[in-house]
Amino acid sequence: MRILAAQLNPTVCDLEGNTQKILQTLERARKQKIDLVLFAEMAICGYPPEDLLLHHSFIEAVQSSLERVVKVSQHLFVVVGLVRRNTSKGEKPLFNSAAVIYDGKLLGYQDKILLPTYDVFDERRYFEPGREVHLWDFKDKKIAVTICEDIWQHAGYVEYTHYAKDPVEELILLKPDLLLNLSASPYQFQKPAVRVKVCAKSAQSLCCPLLMCCQVGSNDQLVFDGYSLFLDGKGTLCKTAKGFEEDELVVDLDEVLPPCPLVYDPIKDLYQALVLGVRDYFHKSGFKKGCLGLSGGIDSALVACIAAEALGKENVLGITMPSRYSSSGSVVDSEKLAQNLGVQLIKVSIEKPFGVFLNLLEPLFQGKGVDVTEENIQARIRGIILMAISNKLGHIVLSTGNKSEMALGYCTLYGDMAGGLSVISDVTKKQVYELSRWINREKEIIPLAVLEKAPSAELRENQKDSDSLPEYDIVDKVLQGYVENCLSPQEIAEKNNLSIKLVLDLIHRIHRAEYKRRQAAPGLRVSKKAFLAGRRYPIVQGWM
Amino acid sequence: MRILAAQLNPTVCDLEGNTQKILQTLERARKQKIDLVLFAEMAICGYPPEDLLLHHSFIEAVQSSLERVVKVSQHLFVVVGLVRRNTSKGEKPLFNSAAVIYDGKLLGYQDKILLPTYDVFDERRYFEPGREVHLWDFKDKKIAVTICEDIWQHAGYVEYTHYAKDPVEELILLKPDLLLNLSASPYQFQKPAVRVKVCAKSAQSLCCPLLMCCQVGSNDQLVFDGYSLFLDGKGTLCKTAKGFEEDELVVDLDEVLPPCPLVYDPIKDLYQALVLGVRDYFHKSGFKKGCLGLSGGIDSALVACIAAEALGKENVLGITMPSRYSSSGSVVDSEKLAQNLGVQLIKVSIEKPFGVFLNLLEPLFQGKGVDVTEENIQARIRGIILMAISNKLGHIVLSTGNKSEMALGYCTLYGDMAGGLSVISDVTKKQVYELSRWINREKEIIPLAVLEKAPSAELRENQKDSDSLPEYDIVDKVLQGYVENCLSPQEIAEKNNLSIKLVLDLIHRIHRAEYKRRQAAPGLRVSKKAFLAGRRYPIVQGWM
Repeated sequence: MRILAAQLNPTVCDLEGNTQKILQTLERARKQKIDLVLFAEMAICGYPPEDLLLHHSFIEAVQSSLERVVKVSQHLFVVVGLVRRNTSKGEKPLFNSAAVIYDGKLLGYQDKILLPTYDVFDERRYFEPGREVHLWDFKDKKIAVTICEDIWQHAGYVEYTHYAKDPVEELILLKPDLLLNLSASPYQFQKPAVRVKVCAKSAQSLCCPLLMCCQVGSNDQLVFDGYSLFLDGKGTLCKTAKGFEEDELVVDLDEVLPPCPLVYDPIKDLYQALVLGVRDYFHKSGFKKGCLGLSGGIDSALVACIAAEALGKENVLGITMPSRYSSSGSVVDSEKLAQNLGVQLIKVSIEKPFGVFLNLLEPLFQGKGVDVTEENIQARIRGIILMAISNKLGHIVLSTGNKSEMALGYCTLYGDMAGGLSVISDVTKKQVYELSRWINREKEIIPLAVLEKAPSAELRENQKDSDSLPEYDIVDKVLQGYVENCLSPQEIAEKNNLSIKLVLDLIHRIHRAEYKRRQAAPGLRVSKKAFLAGRRYPIVQGWM
Repeated sequence: MRILAAQLNPTVCDLEGNTQKILQTLERARKQKIDLVLFAEMAICGYPPEDLLLHHSFIEAVQSSLERVVKVSQHLFVVVGLVRRNTSKGEKPLFNSAAVIYDGKLLGYQDKILLPTYDVFDERRYFEPGREVHLWDFKDKKIAVTICEDIWQHAGYVEYTHYAKDPVEELILLKPDLLLNLSASPYQFQKPAVRVKVCAKSAQSLCCPLLMCCQVGSNDQLVFDGYSLFLDGKGTLCKTAKGFEEDELVVDLDEVLPPCPLVYDPIKDLYQALVLGVRDYFHKSGFKKGCLGLSGGIDSALVACIAAEALGKENVLGITMPSRYSSSGSVVDSEKLAQNLGVQLIKVSIEKPFGVFLNLLEPLFQGKGVDVTEENIQARIRGIILMAISNKLGHIVLSTGNKSEMALGYCTLYGDMAGGLSVISDVTKKQVYELSRWINREKEIIPLAVLEKAPSAELRENQKDSDSLPEYDIVDKVLQGYVENCLSPQEIAEKNNLSIKLVLDLIHRIHRAEYKRRQAAPGLRVSKKAFLAGRRYPIVQGWM
C-alpha cells in the first residue's frame, strides 16, 4: 500500500485556495498510484480559524468544500482535517474532525478527542471532544485516525492538563495496522525532535507504523514547521518530509525502510521559522515589500537578513535615522550591512523634528530635567518616519525588538515597537547572537563591528543597555524560570544562584511592561512561551 | 436569619488587599448580628486572574488567605469565592470554588460546575468542572451554593454552549431552603435586567429565596456593575444593592419583603460603567492624573467628561492641538468644554512639526500625491505630544476613538489610537450622542456646537467623516449583525434592507482593520461583544 502525507501550507479560512491545493494533491496522487492520502489537521480551513468558527456561514462553506473533495476521491482513501457541526448533544456545537473518504464516498468522521486548551490553544472554546476511536478497513488493513493532541498525552507531553482519556490506550485493544495522525503543531525551538518522540511512543504502544501529516506555513503569530513523519511499527523514524516548505511524504508500506534519524540544526531551523513567518505574513495578506529602521545594532541587522531572505532583497528598504546621539557606526555599519545584503538604504536624520519637538514642549516642561521622555520622542519620530514610508510606498514596517527587551519593557511604545510584524519578539538576545553568527558562517554579512559593539539604544550620550539592564544572560534565566516555567522568585534565585532582590526586580519589570506588550505588533512565536501569543496576564494587578 | 451579600471591589490578585476587605466585612457583620455572609466569585483573588493561575506560589497564597478568613469567622456562616487545587483526577489542576465556613471551621467547598469558555471567558483553560451540588445545613435551613454560570443555563442565557448538566435541575431534587450565588458577571449594556431574569428562573424552579452576591469594580477591560440581588421564593425581586460601588445587601429571611423592581436608566448606567472603568484602571495601578487630546469633536468631549468624573477635574489635562486643517471651533469649543468642566486646557500647535516632517519626507515621496500619509502624520504628531506629556508629567493618556470608528479602522495607529486606556472603544457613535445628551440633561456641559457639528477628523481641507464612511446608523446595524450575532452578509442585508454590496464592503473593512485593533490600547468592554476583549480573529485570513 502506497501512502502519502500531503504537507500543505494553507491560509487560514481561505477555503477556496486550500481546497484547490487539496484537489490538486489528489490528482497528483492518483497519477503516482498512491492508495491513501493523509492531510493535516483542519487542512480545509487552515489552523487556527479562531472566532470565524462562530459563523454558521463559515461552517457551511467548509462542508461545501468537503463535498468537492469527496467528489474527486475516486480510487483513493483520503483522510482530511476540517471542522464539522456536532449534531448530537454536547457542550459545544462543533467537532475538530477528520473526514474519512473512499472512492467518492464519505465513510464517516473521526473527531478529535483531546482538545488542548492552554498556551496558544483554545479548542474548548469551540469544540466538543470526540467520544471514541474507530478503525477503518482499507485493503485488508485496519486504520486508526488520531488528530494531533490525541497522541501527545500518551507520550507525556501535554502541559497543565491530564485528560481523562488516552485515545492511544483505547486503540491498543483494537489492534490497528496503521496509525494516522493529522497535525497542526506550531513550531517552537527544538520542537521537531519532540514530535518524533511523541510519535515513537504511540507506534511502540500500538506496534504499528505511524504516518503524521503536519501543517506547514505561518498564520499570524504561529509558525508551522512541517517535518511530517513516518515511523515503523517499532517506533523507528524512517522518513521525514522537509521542514518549512510544502512537501509530499510517500511511503510504500510493503517495503522495509532503514532508520533515518531526524538531523537538523536548531539555529538554522529557528532562522527558517522566522523567514517563513515573515514571508507568509506578507504574501498571505497580499504585500510584497517591507521596510525597517537600521540602527547599526544587531537586532535590526538580524531582522534585515531575515527580511531579505523572506521577501527578496529588492523588496526590502532599510532606513537609517541618525540623531545627535548616534555613533558614527550607526550609519556606517548600516551602510555596510545594506551593501552586503544588496538592499536599498536611505538616510533620514531625525535632528530637525527632534529639535522642533524639544522647542515645542519646552514651555510645558519648564523646570523638569531631561529623562526618558526625550529618549521616547526620538524613538517615536523614527516610528512616524517608518509609518509614513509604509503609508506612502506600501511597505509593511518590520519591528525589531527582541524578547529580552520586550520582557522588561526596554522599548518605546509607538517608537521602535511600531510595525506590522514583530519579527524577533520571541527571540532572546542570546539567540540573536547565535542566529547572527550562523548567518555569518560562510562570509561576513552582518558586519563584525555590529556583532562586537556593546548593545546600545543610542538615545542619550554614551548610553549602553547595561546602564539599565542586567546582563542579558541573567534576564534570559529569569525569563525561562518565570515566563516559561512559572517558578517562584525563590526557586529562580536558588536554581540560578541569583540574589532574590534581583530576581524580584526583574519579575516586577516583566509585569510592569505588560501594558506595552499589549500594544505590540503581532510577533512570531518560536519558543515554548511567547509574550504575545499564548500568554495572558492582567495589566492592572496586585500580585507583583 | 440575617444574611448579607458583601459586594466588594477587589483588585485582581491583590490577595492582601482583598483579604483585608473580607476580614473587615466579617468584623462589621458580627456587630450587625448577621448570621450568614456571602462574598462574590473569586472574592479572595478578584476576577479574572488569567495566567497568574498557572503559578503554584499564587495558588498557595490564595490558600493562606483562606486560612486567615476561616480564623476570623467566629459565629458566622461564610461563603467566599476563591480558586483551589484539584487534588483528585481531572483534566485541569484547579477548581473555581466557594469555600463554605462556619464558626472558625472550613466545612468544605462547592466547585463551579458550569465553566464558561466563550467571549471573554476562558475557564476551561484553568479549571476542572465541579462534579456535584451539595447542601449545607445551617440554623435549620438547607443552603445550596452555586457559582455564577451555574444558574445561567437554567434560564437559557448562555452563549454558544449547551452544558450537559444543569445544577439547578439537580438541586430541585434536594429541595434547598435558600440558594446562594457567587457572581463575577461583567457589565454590558442593559445586563442588570438580564441578571434579574436569570435569578428569578432559579428561585421559581427551586421555590426558595435566592441571594446573589456580585463583584463590583473594573479590572483591566472588564467592568463589574455590582447590583447584587435578593429574590423571594416566588422569584420576585425584593432588594438590590447599589450599582457601580461597594455595598452591603442585608436581608432578614424571617421578614416578608415587598416587591422592589429594578429601576435603572441604561444610559446613566453606561456612563457610570465607563467612569468606574477609568477610575479603577488608574487608581488600582497607582495613577491619579489623565490627559487627552481635545479635538473639538464629540468623542473627546465625552471622554473628557468621563475622565473629570472618574479622576476629579483637577487631575485631568486637556490638550488642544490645532493644525492648518482645524476649524476655529476646534479650539474654541474645546476651551468652552474645559471651562464647563473646570479642567486645565493647554494648546500646542502641530504646525511646526508637521511642516518639518513634510519637508523631511519630500525627497522620498517625489512624484507621489497627497494621501492618507499626511493625515496620519498629523495624528501621530499629536500622539507624540500626548505621550511626551504622559512621560514627563505622569499622566496616563486616554484615547478617545469610538466603536464605530474602531470597527472600520477609521483611526490612526500610534496617532489618535495611542494611550493607556481606550475609554469609549466599545461605545457606538449613536451611544456617544446619547451619553452626551444625558450629560447635558440639566445644563450645557458639552457645548451644543460640539453636539451639532458634522463629525470630522479635520486632517484635510473640509474633511467630513461622511466622505469615508456610510451613516453611523448603518455601520451600527452591520456591527450588530456581524460582530455581535455572527450573521451572514445576506442575512444582514435582508434584515436591515441594505444592499449586499454595502454590507460586504463594511464587513471587509471590519476584517481589514483587525491589524490596527490588535495594537489598540485596552478598551473598556460595555457591550455584548467588544472588539478588544473577548473577540479573537486572525489578521491574515482568506475568508473576507
